[in-house]
Amino acid sequence: MRFFEDIEVGDVRELGRHEVSRDEIVRFAREWDPQPFHVDDEAAAKSVFGGLTASSCHTYSISSLIFSRSGDRLATAAMLGLELRFPKAVRPGAVLTLRDECLHKRDSRSRPEYGVLRSRTTLVDQEGDDVFVMDSTYLVRRRGDPAAR
Amino acid sequence: MRFFEDIEVGDVRELGRHEVSRDEIVRFAREWDPQPFHVDDEAAAKSVFGGLTASSCHTYSISSLIFSRSGDRLATAAMLGLELRFPKAVRPGAVLTLRDECLHKRDSRSRPEYGVLRSRTTLVDQEGDDVFVMDSTYLVRRRGDPAAR
Repeated sequence: MRFFEDIEVGDVRELGRHEVSRDEIVRFAREWDPQPFHVDDEAAAKSVFGGLTASSCHTYSISSLIFSRSGDRLATAAMLGLELRFPKAVRPGAVLTLRDECLHKRDSRSRPEYGVLRSRTTLVDQEGDDVFVMDSTYLVRRRGDPAAR
Repeated sequence: MRFFEDIEVGDVRELGRHEVSRDEIVRFAREWDPQPFHVDDEAAAKSVFGGLTASSCHTYSISSLIFSRSGDRLATAAMLGLELRFPKAVRPGAVLTLRDECLHKRDSRSRPEYGVLRSRTTLVDQEGDDVFVMDSTYLVRRRGDPAAR
């Protein structure tokens, strides 16, 4: 488990990859975001993307999935805020690599047993293009916190 | 179907509600965000929240789900960017209502058949507290776009 003290500003890690199948795109969208251009080939062909694309909540969930599979155990305690950008559509067959960079760290004023980290998490596709960029701010436990032991 | 021309800045709509079960929280987290405090009662009890809470990608997906169930058919074409905040944890049994407000609209400079909307989407719980606030910027088709007919 890595704690607040273990993270340095500028640290960059590559955390794993995930291939996005057509079936996964349609299955996620059917349950959570069944807009026609996420579930139907014909509607998708007429869309601004010209074909099926992953919904934005699916793309965000993929970043979470790769992180959880990575075995990287960061003592995250709570998500405070996120800014998400989707510079390129995620299409069936995309192979996405997750990169994580620490942008900033500071003490938590209200909770001395935690620190606040700001990270940039990026999904990069097989062509080297960013498809998802997330700047997140979150609480991370310190080693000294009793719940950490 | 509502198009860019049909939306006015300041429009507020209530789009529906969803009760979040313990089972749904654990099921979503097992698949997409299996951090111990999202899937295990004991780990959750020791967490900063003191109990099970929905993961942030789950909460975001719930907002998408309520929107899709609402029957409100907005001619959304692409999500450009999002800012998400999670001011209060979502716990089992929470009943969340989705509200949507148009903050801003402008023409798309690069794609004249679309406009750009900026909206604030809020999930409010049964106590009247905001649990999720999303400011989103997205492309919406105009009535004149051939794909809209």
